[in-house]
Amino acid sequence: MRYIVMKHGIRFGIVGATGAVGREILALCETKKLPIKEIRLFASENSQGSSLGFNGQNIPLQVLQDNCFQGLDIVFFCAGGNISQKYAPSAVEQGAIVIDNSSVYRLDNNVPLIIPEVNPQALALHNGIIANPNCSTIIMLTALAPLHKKAKIKRIVAATYQAASGAGAKGMADLLEETKAYFEGSLYKRSIIPFPYAFNLFLHNSALKENCYSEEELKMVYETRKILNDDTIKITATCVRVPVLRAHSEALNVEFHMPIDEKEAKNILSSAPGVTILEDLALRRFPMPIDAIGKEGIFCGRIRKDISLDNTLDLWVVGDQLLKGAAQNALQIAELILKENRCINYI
Amino acid sequence: MRYIVMKHGIRFGIVGATGAVGREILALCETKKLPIKEIRLFASENSQGSSLGFNGQNIPLQVLQDNCFQGLDIVFFCAGGNISQKYAPSAVEQGAIVIDNSSVYRLDNNVPLIIPEVNPQALALHNGIIANPNCSTIIMLTALAPLHKKAKIKRIVAATYQAASGAGAKGMADLLEETKAYFEGSLYKRSIIPFPYAFNLFLHNSALKENCYSEEELKMVYETRKILNDDTIKITATCVRVPVLRAHSEALNVEFHMPIDEKEAKNILSSAPGVTILEDLALRRFPMPIDAIGKEGIFCGRIRKDISLDNTLDLWVVGDQLLKGAAQNALQIAELILKENRCINYI
Repeated sequence: MRYIVMKHGIRFGIVGATGAVGREILALCETKKLPIKEIRLFASENSQGSSLGFNGQNIPLQVLQDNCFQGLDIVFFCAGGNISQKYAPSAVEQGAIVIDNSSVYRLDNNVPLIIPEVNPQALALHNGIIANPNCSTIIMLTALAPLHKKAKIKRIVAATYQAASGAGAKGMADLLEETKAYFEGSLYKRSIIPFPYAFNLFLHNSALKENCYSEEELKMVYETRKILNDDTIKITATCVRVPVLRAHSEALNVEFHMPIDEKEAKNILSSAPGVTILEDLALRRFPMPIDAIGKEGIFCGRIRKDISLDNTLDLWVVGDQLLKGAAQNALQIAELILKENRCINYI
Repeated sequence: MRYIVMKHGIRFGIVGATGAVGREILALCETKKLPIKEIRLFASENSQGSSLGFNGQNIPLQVLQDNCFQGLDIVFFCAGGNISQKYAPSAVEQGAIVIDNSSVYRLDNNVPLIIPEVNPQALALHNGIIANPNCSTIIMLTALAPLHKKAKIKRIVAATYQAASGAGAKGMADLLEETKAYFEGSLYKRSIIPFPYAFNLFLHNSALKENCYSEEELKMVYETRKILNDDTIKITATCVRVPVLRAHSEALNVEFHMPIDEKEAKNILSSAPGVTILEDLALRRFPMPIDAIGKEGIFCGRIRKDISLDNTLDLWVVGDQLLKGAAQNALQIAELILKENRCINYI
């Protein structure tokens, strides 16, 4: 366990500050009124000379270089796996704690993988790097962990409806611009989305493994087991990119070892941290992506007893991919670190 | 069994001819070059005085009235359950065979429910009315029936990605117009879609039953059992409307009684009627809605062995909701009737 002493405010760094997740972390730092003494923003060379606004100030964008993390307490990495792999160890050497949004350290035994509502205790084991889980996994487990505690999950069949934001700011731009071009009858060249996206959807295009599961699907499998600390949980998932901007939805079919019915599950979830039940059976109104956009936590509704199998529930969950699926969870991990370290100024 | 004698061509009627499905049936009659002697088109009073083109002729739109089906061999009903309930029996009394696209007769024991590739033998039992199944069910079972024959389905967990066309022409217009309004910064008043639809999705809004399943989901349950003639099959489904124009996609998790692996399944499906395997593992290219639009049959890809359960496969299927999901299947039923009746002119 490492300790931070910060009596007069926190010093944050954000690597990938101009990306979709980096910008959300910066915005959350501002709206949450964290006692930030210094914030250092890192971006690619293209952004040199530019700045981003924070608490009424213009913070210049810096490039990563030797000793650039000196003096920082916590550095958020949101610039992809390669950058994390190359620079996160230096940040740790320079005295910072790293919260990494990429997937490179998530399954490393020396790195805790944390959803603060689910497994805050894992923080105690960190060696300088803490991994922020995959967005679909965070959104799923924020809802399922309290049910797992009650009735022990046996098997999950998940189907996702993932937003453009999972492919970053460029993914969202591709969706908007290609759809606009559809109406204008013009052609738009997508920058990052691999397939036509206007009024279309496709199976998540992350690399396929030998078993024909995509990396995105396997993240849901292995990260779930690590976060819930239970390798007996069986999971299959089908991950799909849909033409939605920044909130993921998931249809979850969950079999439990012990009996649990829909009323009990709803009861548990109605007081679960980070979960908002949103359902109006009369209006057939359940969580939708537009309900979750810009909101913290996840939304859950349509908790049904599966008519096809005992001890099994069907649930529908939705969460902002950039917030609870990334930036919010990362910042909650930071808050957890600050609390654990008894940073009096902060608490 | 009733017989039709039609030595010199077929006489078709289409009720709901101006709707999304009615128009597709009319178009298919033309492209398939069926030996049609007479086609009679029925629509609401609003359409009186208008006509639709067919084989270079303008066919006037008629309103439903006493004896309007006299002399017709087959009448397609695609104007909703109320109209079917009110007029289909008269059509039968007047000597026609009815192919009904609504849900009102589907579970009636006296009415066969047919996917021609799956259960053509059920036609023998008809008493004048034959029901065309629910679109999601047709698309699912066209792929699953050949696998059921081989290894017997035990349980299905289905998640759907359903297009706007399931809500008819107005549903498609709502999606397009609301999305256009999004870019124009204007407001659009949706005519039939109940929730915001531009870059959004929502659980299918058909009526909810006591068990909190929607009617659309229960159609997949009960129609599957009737079509496969196997009440032991367990099914759960989550039906979702996504911002896609006219092709449904489905993530299917299927447990079998007997062993079956992904290679065997792919082998079976590659020669199954109505099924096109579309997959390129290297390009991570699998069926998408835009692949299916305007195409007959269904597309299947990403047939995986489920890593979470023995004897279980994950499949991804996509089909044009208006074609195989409705008009094409209805016309295939008509062709089946014509073949069974040895209509020499037709064969």
